Amino acid sequence: MEATPTVSIVGASGYSGAELYSLLSRHSSVRIGKLFANTSAGKPFFDVFPRFSVNSKHSDAPVLEQYSPDAACSSELIFIALPSGEAMRIVPELLQRGKRIIDLGGDFRLKNVSVYEHYYKHQHSSPALLNQAVYGLPEWNREAIRKANLVANPGCYPTSALLPLLPLLKEKVIRDDGIVINSLSGVSGAGRSASPEMSFAEVNESVKAYKVAVHQHTPEIRSVLSDLTGRKISVSFVPHLLPITRGIYTSIYAPLAQDASLEHILEVFRSHYDLEPFIRFSQERIPEIKHVTNTNFLDIGFRIDRENNMLILISSLDNLFKGAAGQAVQNMNIMFGLNETEGLL
Amino acid sequence: MEATPTVSIVGASGYSGAELYSLLSRHSSVRIGKLFANTSAGKPFFDVFPRFSVNSKHSDAPVLEQYSPDAACSSELIFIALPSGEAMRIVPELLQRGKRIIDLGGDFRLKNVSVYEHYYKHQHSSPALLNQAVYGLPEWNREAIRKANLVANPGCYPTSALLPLLPLLKEKVIRDDGIVINSLSGVSGAGRSASPEMSFAEVNESVKAYKVAVHQHTPEIRSVLSDLTGRKISVSFVPHLLPITRGIYTSIYAPLAQDASLEHILEVFRSHYDLEPFIRFSQERIPEIKHVTNTNFLDIGFRIDRENNMLILISSLDNLFKGAAGQAVQNMNIMFGLNETEGLL
Amino acid sequence: MEATPTVSIVGASGYSGAELYSLLSRHSSVRIGKLFANTSAGKPFFDVFPRFSVNSKHSDAPVLEQYSPDAACSSELIFIALPSGEAMRIVPELLQRGKRIIDLGGDFRLKNVSVYEHYYKHQHSSPALLNQAVYGLPEWNREAIRKANLVANPGCYPTSALLPLLPLLKEKVIRDDGIVINSLSGVSGAGRSASPEMSFAEVNESVKAYKVAVHQHTPEIRSVLSDLTGRKISVSFVPHLLPITRGIYTSIYAPLAQDASLEHILEVFRSHYDLEPFIRFSQERIPEIKHVTNTNFLDIGFRIDRENNMLILISSLDNLFKGAAGQAVQNMNIMFGLNETEGLL
Amino acid sequence: MEATPTVSIVGASGYSGAELYSLLSRHSSVRIGKLFANTSAGKPFFDVFPRFSVNSKHSDAPVLEQYSPDAACSSELIFIALPSGEAMRIVPELLQRGKRIIDLGGDFRLKNVSVYEHYYKHQHSSPALLNQAVYGLPEWNREAIRKANLVANPGCYPTSALLPLLPLLKEKVIRDDGIVINSLSGVSGAGRSASPEMSFAEVNESVKAYKVAVHQHTPEIRSVLSDLTGRKISVSFVPHLLPITRGIYTSIYAPLAQDASLEHILEVFRSHYDLEPFIRFSQERIPEIKHVTNTNFLDIGFRIDRENNMLILISSLDNLFKGAAGQAVQNMNIMFGLNETEGLL
Repeated sequence: MEATPTVSIVGASGYSGAELYSLLSRHSSVRIGKLFANTSAGKPFFDVFPRFSVNSKHSDAPVLEQYSPDAACSSELIFIALPSGEAMRIVPELLQRGKRIIDLGGDFRLKNVSVYEHYYKHQHSSPALLNQAVYGLPEWNREAIRKANLVANPGCYPTSALLPLLPLLKEKVIRDDGIVINSLSGVSGAGRSASPEMSFAEVNESVKAYKVAVHQHTPEIRSVLSDLTGRKISVSFVPHLLPITRGIYTSIYAPLAQDASLEHILEVFRSHYDLEPFIRFSQERIPEIKHVTNTNFLDIGFRIDRENNMLILISSLDNLFKGAAGQAVQNMNIMFGLNETEGLL
Repeated sequence: MEATPTVSIVGASGYSGAELYSLLSRHSSVRIGKLFANTSAGKPFFDVFPRFSVNSKHSDAPVLEQYSPDAACSSELIFIALPSGEAMRIVPELLQRGKRIIDLGGDFRLKNVSVYEHYYKHQHSSPALLNQAVYGLPEWNREAIRKANLVANPGCYPTSALLPLLPLLKEKVIRDDGIVINSLSGVSGAGRSASPEMSFAEVNESVKAYKVAVHQHTPEIRSVLSDLTGRKISVSFVPHLLPITRGIYTSIYAPLAQDASLEHILEVFRSHYDLEPFIRFSQERIPEIKHVTNTNFLDIGFRIDRENNMLILISSLDNLFKGAAGQAVQNMNIMFGLNETEGLL
Repeated sequence: MEATPTVSIVGASGYSGAELYSLLSRHSSVRIGKLFANTSAGKPFFDVFPRFSVNSKHSDAPVLEQYSPDAACSSELIFIALPSGEAMRIVPELLQRGKRIIDLGGDFRLKNVSVYEHYYKHQHSSPALLNQAVYGLPEWNREAIRKANLVANPGCYPTSALLPLLPLLKEKVIRDDGIVINSLSGVSGAGRSASPEMSFAEVNESVKAYKVAVHQHTPEIRSVLSDLTGRKISVSFVPHLLPITRGIYTSIYAPLAQDASLEHILEVFRSHYDLEPFIRFSQERIPEIKHVTNTNFLDIGFRIDRENNMLILISSLDNLFKGAAGQAVQNMNIMFGLNETEGLL
Repeated sequence: MEATPTVSIVGASGYSGAELYSLLSRHSSVRIGKLFANTSAGKPFFDVFPRFSVNSKHSDAPVLEQYSPDAACSSELIFIALPSGEAMRIVPELLQRGKRIIDLGGDFRLKNVSVYEHYYKHQHSSPALLNQAVYGLPEWNREAIRKANLVANPGCYPTSALLPLLPLLKEKVIRDDGIVINSLSGVSGAGRSASPEMSFAEVNESVKAYKVAVHQHTPEIRSVLSDLTGRKISVSFVPHLLPITRGIYTSIYAPLAQDASLEHILEVFRSHYDLEPFIRFSQERIPEIKHVTNTNFLDIGFRIDRENNMLILISSLDNLFKGAAGQAVQNMNIMFGLNETEGLL
């Protein structure tokens, strides 16, 4: 890139949008263009998120604007952080006008339109774009992302499950079936909205599983695993809501395909991830959410349950970083040919 | 009372209403009549509060009903646990039909209608009843409560401030002015509703003061202190929202009127509260919220700041017990001539 | 029983011991004898747990005593709530002196002494008693408990896993192998001690798996499942520490042995548990920890993952109630021939 | 400074030490020299704080060392983050050897040795240094800090109280007496140690006041206020422990000395703090802890309670940033003649 590129955020008043702002405002190689929001349009951004204010005067503070394609097109790349079903309405025009897009929602993560409509419970208005979209998992799709115009940023749960599973499936260390994925998520993963179920008094001092075996991230995990291995991989996935603000914790139970040792597992991770800047794996240490909070790292730990010939993989990430905005910035860095870690360490 | 009296709850789908149900369902001398709710009318009560379910069948489980005066009048006493401004609409007819009422809201706690309208921001439709209502603070109003038809159950913050202050003002140990009341409250005090400000991700890991010096409990504290001492007492009051579910913690800074010792303070509390079943005071121990959670106790501790001639009083209560439903049941016991602690220990 | 029996608690200064005190002090058919503690011996019980204090005077408050067999033998039944390895030192003498015992720790839950020593990392001093001890899971061992002198109260995790699994294994609805048990626990499950890992700042806003595949409750689950079905059942079990005070949440992934419907699963639970006072199962509702907190209920929910032919069972309990003290009181009621729910509703 | 200066941390295994590491490792104008710790000496720093690890290999990861004056003297400036009473033992030699020091503890904050010994409960071994030490509150002591060899970094509570109070006392807007300071603190303020009182199950869902009117920060607040105004200022101060990890929230009740308006208060803050990079004040917005978490900002809000002629000031800061490590780095920047905000935005 010659000049400093300008990027905009659609959905800047949500948690992922705010995290994007936070990361981009400290990024030295891009400039923030427009911040779009809907009900908060017209408000200074710092009124919605006072923590980003840098002094008492707010002199040239950014103002949230109502989205318009023309305003968005003053940027080279547009991040979309909207609820599912909304990105698909604005993406086609932006692509036509030559813009590059990173969609943090679920609209372009699946290839199969009927699976999308089954899990997301609404029709897809641009099914033709599903095959054009590139799944934005840098560790496995870096080259395609570099050239992509439309990047579907992975879901938080899928990122936590795909990264530990893929090397082991690739190397056939674990079996293709019988994989159990038990995930725990902080509340910010559900977005910023006023649902009684998300009120403090309901969430605090409790835990609940939800969308048991029917969560929309299940087909995302399955299809990416199958696409990248070329084999049909099946998984059982149950998400749970935790009384913490941010963080994903995923425990995976994978039947071993061979008589593997811990050293062998470590070697597989080494051969795939040794140069990856945002994956930390360890034979000794079991991940904890607090080790990844406010970072773009995905941590991986593992143990073997010999009595059941089961590999137990544990991963953790910050759902607003590697699970959303951080990974989106990582993708942007790749798309712009920048250092992949810029603005993320 | 000859037969077992029947009591009903208007607003049974809120937190105070649920706590009332919980207490009354274990009370051996009253029978629960109707449970009224608005948007949840028609639903089984256990669908709204599954924790109260007693088995897997829910055979003769209670059902929430839309409020009607006729249905309410099948009970001898009606608890009203509604947002401010709603009780005043149903109380007049119930009183006319000879029913006794305990209102857990703020509609009948103030005597002065213009003060009410200033702080509650809406008109009062039954100002004539303000003087008829008895302020339901058992430790100071027991005889009036016994005969009352309309009891205004005290607010959670006022209960936590009035009980430590009253004996000391009565005995002129502290001055009538310059009293500072700094209160902290768990989230359930705000009731059960879907406000974005009460969402877990907004409340967790934070604290904020709110309605600084303009909270509607300020005039309640002032007027009760003045009424019961016969002098004008002024207080500064700031409430804060805490990331916990239940509990009130109040720190009071009261300029001493005389050169009092800790032993003298203790003696004052002893002379007023030694026989009170729900007040625990201590010269050694500073209260903690966890000591009162799920109990009807108000705990009081105190220290003297000699350099400033200031008495520091600390009190704590469970906002759904002594701060709402527990105190309401205590009032009901008094009104029915029952043992005051029945169903509360 | 003719007269009101007296019971004592060894380890009354821990969380389970305190919960036992709380339950027994409200129990109308037993009398509390001695409260034994070690480092807190000599202190009034209410100094250690101020929340149980009933007034400001503490006149005849109980005092924690150093354990002695003679003092313990003034009671008919002794609850032992000590860390593993300590109960085995005092149980033999108490049994010899004709006392009945409910041990809330792990010393007598396993039948196989070498498995015990492998998982608990110390020798067993009374291996001969392992076969005499009765596993105190009332729903499956009621008759043996009634006559037992030594009841091994089940672990919190095992209770949450055994109760949903046993009926389905009995009826061969699920397979005997490939069962995954993913459990989450509040902090009180680890007992009351000053470990830096349990400090608020370390636990808060985080989650971690621990003792992955090597937790001492794994052989407890396996051996009870195998004993009660007569078949070898294998399970993978991973416990996780949650930032909440109390509660266990267990998600079980069990491969189906047959083409079962949800209705069939419901029917299996009905046939086994319809009369059980402390088990609530539901085809519609997925358990949440807050629905069982401060109750002796175990809640069970379930879903079928058709794509993987997997039954997903979710259970929840309060680790200090059904997971410890509540279940211990339930066992005591059975041993004394009392109503099983007395003091527990 | 010509070359990049090297700085070391004594007490790098505590919370403040870790935060210092985090800030300094991203600071572009200083180099981290040694990390000293006591019981953790010999361990890789990333084993103690895995969240700072930057990849899976930890190749040239720093190792915690046992403190020695010689090793420390390879740096130009030494941060000391030790419990009170320990810094005074190592400071004299370091000063003699020409090193500059920022002490994050309380050993050099008070001028009066007998007040120190009264509140800190141990003798001071270097009373002669008390007058040499510069109180490191940049907004009021910038020039002295620039030239200082020994900077006493302010306490977290005092920072939150002094910054809002000082301008108003300077301008005589508020009275010199009757000031009440009610502070709430997250748990990390107590440092990283294994006290049973700081365990999750004890702190969670509770609040308690502690060291009521006897906290060692009381004389720190009083003496700095008096030193900087030249008048005797008295305050009542009560700290409270909150169930959050980080953050200080201070509510100040200050009797007005004159009939001030909100606009006048705002103007006072403007005239003193308009150019301050880390103070945000607002007439509209009441601070919330979450707005300052992980930032070096101190937020100030205010209201007037007309009925009591009382100014209510609310302030909030992150106890590990502006309340400890952040302010220490700000002081270092001043001492080194760097941009004061470097590494802190």
